[in-house]
Amino acid sequence: MSQATNQSWGGRFSEPTDAFVERFTASVGFDQRLAAQDIQGSIAHATMLARVGVLTDDERESIVTGLNEIRDEIERGEFQWTVPLEDVHMNIEARLTDKIGITGKKLHTGRSRNDQVATDIRLFMRDAIDATEVELIRLREGMVELADREADTIMPGFTHLQTAQPVTFGHHLLAWQEMLARNHERLLDCRKRVNVMPLGAAALAGTTYPIDRHVTAELLGFERPAENSLDAVSDRDFAIEFVSFASILLMHMSRMSEELVLWTSAQFDFIDLPDRFCTGSSIMPQKKNPDVPELVRGKTGRVYGHLMGLLTLMKSQPLAYNKDNQEDKEPLFDAVDTVGDCLKAFADMVPAIEPKKVNMFEAARKGFSTATDLADYLVRKGVAFRDAHEIVGESVAYGLKEEKDLSQMSLDELRQFSQAIESDVFEVLTLEGSVAARNHIGGTAPDQVRAAAQRAREALAVLKDQA
Amino acid sequence: MSQATNQSWGGRFSEPTDAFVERFTASVGFDQRLAAQDIQGSIAHATMLARVGVLTDDERESIVTGLNEIRDEIERGEFQWTVPLEDVHMNIEARLTDKIGITGKKLHTGRSRNDQVATDIRLFMRDAIDATEVELIRLREGMVELADREADTIMPGFTHLQTAQPVTFGHHLLAWQEMLARNHERLLDCRKRVNVMPLGAAALAGTTYPIDRHVTAELLGFERPAENSLDAVSDRDFAIEFVSFASILLMHMSRMSEELVLWTSAQFDFIDLPDRFCTGSSIMPQKKNPDVPELVRGKTGRVYGHLMGLLTLMKSQPLAYNKDNQEDKEPLFDAVDTVGDCLKAFADMVPAIEPKKVNMFEAARKGFSTATDLADYLVRKGVAFRDAHEIVGESVAYGLKEEKDLSQMSLDELRQFSQAIESDVFEVLTLEGSVAARNHIGGTAPDQVRAAAQRAREALAVLKDQA
Amino acid sequence: MSQATNQSWGGRFSEPTDAFVERFTASVGFDQRLAAQDIQGSIAHATMLARVGVLTDDERESIVTGLNEIRDEIERGEFQWTVPLEDVHMNIEARLTDKIGITGKKLHTGRSRNDQVATDIRLFMRDAIDATEVELIRLREGMVELADREADTIMPGFTHLQTAQPVTFGHHLLAWQEMLARNHERLLDCRKRVNVMPLGAAALAGTTYPIDRHVTAELLGFERPAENSLDAVSDRDFAIEFVSFASILLMHMSRMSEELVLWTSAQFDFIDLPDRFCTGSSIMPQKKNPDVPELVRGKTGRVYGHLMGLLTLMKSQPLAYNKDNQEDKEPLFDAVDTVGDCLKAFADMVPAIEPKKVNMFEAARKGFSTATDLADYLVRKGVAFRDAHEIVGESVAYGLKEEKDLSQMSLDELRQFSQAIESDVFEVLTLEGSVAARNHIGGTAPDQVRAAAQRAREALAVLKDQA
Amino acid sequence: MSQATNQSWGGRFSEPTDAFVERFTASVGFDQRLAAQDIQGSIAHATMLARVGVLTDDERESIVTGLNEIRDEIERGEFQWTVPLEDVHMNIEARLTDKIGITGKKLHTGRSRNDQVATDIRLFMRDAIDATEVELIRLREGMVELADREADTIMPGFTHLQTAQPVTFGHHLLAWQEMLARNHERLLDCRKRVNVMPLGAAALAGTTYPIDRHVTAELLGFERPAENSLDAVSDRDFAIEFVSFASILLMHMSRMSEELVLWTSAQFDFIDLPDRFCTGSSIMPQKKNPDVPELVRGKTGRVYGHLMGLLTLMKSQPLAYNKDNQEDKEPLFDAVDTVGDCLKAFADMVPAIEPKKVNMFEAARKGFSTATDLADYLVRKGVAFRDAHEIVGESVAYGLKEEKDLSQMSLDELRQFSQAIESDVFEVLTLEGSVAARNHIGGTAPDQVRAAAQRAREALAVLKDQA
Repeated sequence: MSQATNQSWGGRFSEPTDAFVERFTASVGFDQRLAAQDIQGSIAHATMLARVGVLTDDERESIVTGLNEIRDEIERGEFQWTVPLEDVHMNIEARLTDKIGITGKKLHTGRSRNDQVATDIRLFMRDAIDATEVELIRLREGMVELADREADTIMPGFTHLQTAQPVTFGHHLLAWQEMLARNHERLLDCRKRVNVMPLGAAALAGTTYPIDRHVTAELLGFERPAENSLDAVSDRDFAIEFVSFASILLMHMSRMSEELVLWTSAQFDFIDLPDRFCTGSSIMPQKKNPDVPELVRGKTGRVYGHLMGLLTLMKSQPLAYNKDNQEDKEPLFDAVDTVGDCLKAFADMVPAIEPKKVNMFEAARKGFSTATDLADYLVRKGVAFRDAHEIVGESVAYGLKEEKDLSQMSLDELRQFSQAIESDVFEVLTLEGSVAARNHIGGTAPDQVRAAAQRAREALAVLKDQA
Repeated sequence: MSQATNQSWGGRFSEPTDAFVERFTASVGFDQRLAAQDIQGSIAHATMLARVGVLTDDERESIVTGLNEIRDEIERGEFQWTVPLEDVHMNIEARLTDKIGITGKKLHTGRSRNDQVATDIRLFMRDAIDATEVELIRLREGMVELADREADTIMPGFTHLQTAQPVTFGHHLLAWQEMLARNHERLLDCRKRVNVMPLGAAALAGTTYPIDRHVTAELLGFERPAENSLDAVSDRDFAIEFVSFASILLMHMSRMSEELVLWTSAQFDFIDLPDRFCTGSSIMPQKKNPDVPELVRGKTGRVYGHLMGLLTLMKSQPLAYNKDNQEDKEPLFDAVDTVGDCLKAFADMVPAIEPKKVNMFEAARKGFSTATDLADYLVRKGVAFRDAHEIVGESVAYGLKEEKDLSQMSLDELRQFSQAIESDVFEVLTLEGSVAARNHIGGTAPDQVRAAAQRAREALAVLKDQA
Repeated sequence: MSQATNQSWGGRFSEPTDAFVERFTASVGFDQRLAAQDIQGSIAHATMLARVGVLTDDERESIVTGLNEIRDEIERGEFQWTVPLEDVHMNIEARLTDKIGITGKKLHTGRSRNDQVATDIRLFMRDAIDATEVELIRLREGMVELADREADTIMPGFTHLQTAQPVTFGHHLLAWQEMLARNHERLLDCRKRVNVMPLGAAALAGTTYPIDRHVTAELLGFERPAENSLDAVSDRDFAIEFVSFASILLMHMSRMSEELVLWTSAQFDFIDLPDRFCTGSSIMPQKKNPDVPELVRGKTGRVYGHLMGLLTLMKSQPLAYNKDNQEDKEPLFDAVDTVGDCLKAFADMVPAIEPKKVNMFEAARKGFSTATDLADYLVRKGVAFRDAHEIVGESVAYGLKEEKDLSQMSLDELRQFSQAIESDVFEVLTLEGSVAARNHIGGTAPDQVRAAAQRAREALAVLKDQA
Repeated sequence: MSQATNQSWGGRFSEPTDAFVERFTASVGFDQRLAAQDIQGSIAHATMLARVGVLTDDERESIVTGLNEIRDEIERGEFQWTVPLEDVHMNIEARLTDKIGITGKKLHTGRSRNDQVATDIRLFMRDAIDATEVELIRLREGMVELADREADTIMPGFTHLQTAQPVTFGHHLLAWQEMLARNHERLLDCRKRVNVMPLGAAALAGTTYPIDRHVTAELLGFERPAENSLDAVSDRDFAIEFVSFASILLMHMSRMSEELVLWTSAQFDFIDLPDRFCTGSSIMPQKKNPDVPELVRGKTGRVYGHLMGLLTLMKSQPLAYNKDNQEDKEPLFDAVDTVGDCLKAFADMVPAIEPKKVNMFEAARKGFSTATDLADYLVRKGVAFRDAHEIVGESVAYGLKEEKDLSQMSLDELRQFSQAIESDVFEVLTLEGSVAARNHIGGTAPDQVRAAAQRAREALAVLKDQA
């Protein structure tokens, strides 16, 4: 038996595949990860074929038994994957025929590897999305609880990394949580479009067998069969859309990571990360490095890269399936793993963050962080906002020169800049007063933070019920 | 008055901005495109401030009148934009104060440029999405009608750009339409997340004024106020998500374009594009180039680039607003324009595509496109699929040597490869028989194409009603 | 005269271009920026045509005079650009024929817009590279001088943003300078490949006229004519390569910017940036934001995006010229401008950075930054490095608990961890001793910094001579 | 012994690393690929330490012997890699200490993992570049020989995928070869910047030991030690630059692949690819798919993605080393492998391409490909080029209507459009005449193609000598 006839398409060829080409074009090295889904899809396909009379019940029985045994072999690590059989599909089918004889050759009736692989990936992605959601919910819950606990903890809020206004640490954590909430929505939007069944599209045009795609879709838990066979075998939107979700998620996690790295620096010193999330240096004995957030920040590049890779892959491909599409799996698998690992790492780590409240408070106290409050005070005394801004700007310039914060100036000093300032000014210049005064939906007042945490908690409970 | 005091923040500074720095950091050159939205937002903000008693009704009246006049000046092209005033917000506010005096300075009470610009862009994007949807619906409708008309037109279906099986041109067009349907869903998913109001977040922490964000949200048609002020001023997800939508859309349009370019080549010669969508050559007098699809294909790069640019922009930014974010507008505006132009060009062009039916049919007749039908025929005669595949592979090898298509071989010639072949084989080897036999949902049979077109037509009608 | 006959290729067409399509496909809106290079190329082309006898000397004279006048019209802003004439080439040629009559129509002999535009862009890029180099040299020089001045200024060196070891500020600046030196090399490597002449490739295959490409190349200062006409009209490597250079440069500048932003934060407070490179806030009167570095950091995304856009553009294009290529110009022009502006901004700003030496020194003194020096001390006393590392790790753990830096512990306290420690240990625990001890090429010792600055100064002088 | 003390930095920590975090942050799973380079670097480092007296000769001897044994263990697959030891460096060092005792602990004197890994990667990349060059030269040679052989083979040249002018197949192949020549230059430019030694930078600031970096550089074949320690440990330009080279190379290979796919389609049918570079279909028995070029085209996305990933990774990182950098290896390794495989596949395949000369010639004969020649003829008869273009445009319109190519029209028919046409016109309308007439450097004339092939052959010989 020539090497070529090992393959599913040897009849027409006069020369076996070049050995290097065989390795170069084979996908079994990575697509074996789809084995469980491949078997799941094959069982449903065989069941449908029996239902419409293309297979007998005995044939179906034999196929299902054989496939279940193969699944066990794979799970036990005993299955022999071979490159000449190219991919996960042919490896499993060849083993099935080994086991059950000629009936195994009937399994591929009415389908093609083109619709088969598209179905496998969608089953895989549906599972991956559901597993991603579990970690995402866990992380969001951890954030909400920490935020609620830290609703009163005052820290400096920054814009341009310059001290801007005091905020609460709980409020800051809920900002992160809002980012995650949008990612959660996008994940579920993506799932809708993943959960559509290509099977039945066959190579590209459908099949001449009397298949019933609604049956197969129901057996596999798909919402509906795909509407168009040419599109079904060539569509890789769901991969791009998942990696697009992953890119925005990692973008957000890179932002959180950046802040965690800043906050653990000696200069900020706002939080403690437990040792178990850090590593040290082989040369500098004093080092405790925030490796987990740094690595998550670094992994952003990996995921962005996969997004660009997949978009490039699909650019300008004519219909229907082209070999290029084989390149969809590795970036997708890696994006799934990266997202899962990063979410797990954060879901474990975030609840263990320990704020150093004194340092946070002291940092907020400096840097004229209540200057806006002074301007607002002046407005309430009848000064137009733009004029108030100018007055406060001048008092800050004075403070910089004299090395005094606003709350450290005397009433006389303050009144140099505006006669509208009176002794009640000192109430608005405290940090507690400043945050409490931002008391509207979305504001940083502790009461608002607690209310927002409660709303988030309830929304998460609903999502968990639906998941 | 020093140059510095022209600006909204001069009080604290001892030295004016460097002239080059002023130009380098100014955004008015591009953000003036948000003028209408800026005024719309300011009117709603002033109305809310009056409602809660921060402004008097007279002050509100004066502000609204002034802003409406400014809108007219801008529309008439009479407005003087100046770089020292940095951005669209300060240009408009300064003009307002020119016109109505000190009351103009009160408009900025309880907001910041940070929440103001975030609100402006969301208003802009909501309009842009709605305009995009109009063109997208028009293109989808054109495709559906053309597909319905060409439900019986036979052409070769390709995989690997090799003749695979006959399909109908209508079926091919509906594959394109399915791609667009998913883009449409993604666009509406994106719109949900755009239509949330940042205003009230002020600089980053909310404001001490007794604002009512629900009022402003209702006035501006937003679904709800954003939940968290820090997030509200720094979130640019909606920009990334729109450009992500645009990237997948352009990816699809690059695929359609690639096919249009192939089909207008002398080698394929499957369609005619009207002269008005083509251009010629300055040196080769015979040329008629498919410029529109080529250019659309080329514009894919531009949009992918903007996606990567925006993802890079946001990577690792600490909360809340940073100057980096100013770079969000140009790629977003360009993506909006590119999507609009490409959709318009296709919506005009697609209905004017004229298939050259004879050429399509002849191309499908060649290349053993009914080989799968022969294999399926053998399966129905009791041969296992994998064996049938092998038999047909050998007949193709014979045909290549003898330069005969399958339908051109005699029964005796065919029976060399399998005794299961009988005289009824010739029915399955016709193109019409081949396409008609793929008669299940998603298959290429003309009846299925017409039914799919009808379903698409109905789905579009529903979307148009909702738009 | 129909609209179609306005164009250079109307003869074969039966229907004018659709008005929207005309605008959609026209490039004159952006390629007019190549006008000076277009005229420069045309003059050289006409001169060569006269030299080989295709034009008479009078014809050449007339063409050159006409083109020079047109250049003046363009410079004076009097030239009327029109969209129906599509691009810069046809606009100028049409105007030339207006001015000098039928001789103008002879200019296009032996060339095509395909080789013409490729030549124009390369001339433009050569100029742009030379202008970029001027700013790059200026920035490098500023860095070297500042580094030399600050060769003794001690600051903490960071890894993982954790205090690692003391370094000098001059050493840190020279790290930046090394990055720029590699960018400089890449820029000059790119220039070599830009400076090759496509002219003579005509549409794609060369021309039947007896042209002499060596003459034209010499007239235009190109190193040599391109070797292959098909490649010459379709090659856009130089654009990708320039934007690739720009991407790495901006990546480096984003790193410098990140550090400048950190250093101006209240938490680090390592430097002062003069007011003229900063801006303020419209709401928070105390703010002084490091806008210039933030914006440069943000512009990284723009340039990365252009790189990805150009790579996508060129992917899978068959030879030779395709309309897609028209999309090369806008990203390239924008990359040139962005690089120029960012370099200029930094070249102005870097020399004005004022280190706050006391803050830097104090930050280095804390955080056990000399722990490695203690380990090295132990090694010199005969302890194996790995054991020394363990000993110092334990003393740091003790110091954290007791809130004492290493230099604050008594000899007895230190000897708890190793009897090898003796009274000479305190010399190695000073910052000055630590930096001075790293006295080898590339090390942070002040003498090494000054020597490295001198080497850089000399290398720059050589480059300036060659530029 | 606690888990933590297994690690090189445990002294300061009170809690072992979380098991998941340990796996998440470990790099040994992929960086073990650097083992040979790690040992090579360590041997050089130990040798230098002995030379300057930090190690004794016996210690050096013992270390070198131990490392050589470890290299053998690794090559034989007997080495036990473990995740708790984090990375390739600590795995090897721990094994060394197992083998040779306390002396093993002295190897790390005067270096850090930061400079060690940077050195390892550069050694690896230098080898990878040299291996890449071998395949690149082989591919270029194959192209040049095929081009020389096909210098007279006429095919249609395309612009906009429309028949433009006849060219020779040899000329087309040399266009590909020119692209590769530029990639070759870029590869060697990149190598210059790779071949610089970070070792001696230690953690970030250099070391207090009296190291001699020139000695180590010479032992390792580096051109020179890196100039600045902070830069040396954080620079990853060489990785980006290699992947940038790879991206442009794959872009070119995607263009060649696109053409190979087109040419093997039934519609073009210009070439035969041997069966050994193709695969078939599991369902369509007639299929022979050009898998190798399709897959190479698809792999373009992978490499573009890695480029974007690495650029993102480095964006905004403050000096010096951050954990993010660990993410540099996987994309770099994959880019190296992808480039190597794609070059090898093409170097094997290109010489085996068999042009179908009759099909190529017939395709060129159609489609008015000599229209430009007719225009040029008219110019030689005294018609201005623009007028000649118009005249030929009209004759093409006539030919389209009458279904006659230019060479099929009678003299009278041609003279309808211009009285300047005479009987000698038919010479210029032949394909052979057309290509032969483009007889200047870079033109498609067979003599020029042969001369260009000869020049390329000589340039390659020089490069091979230098490699």
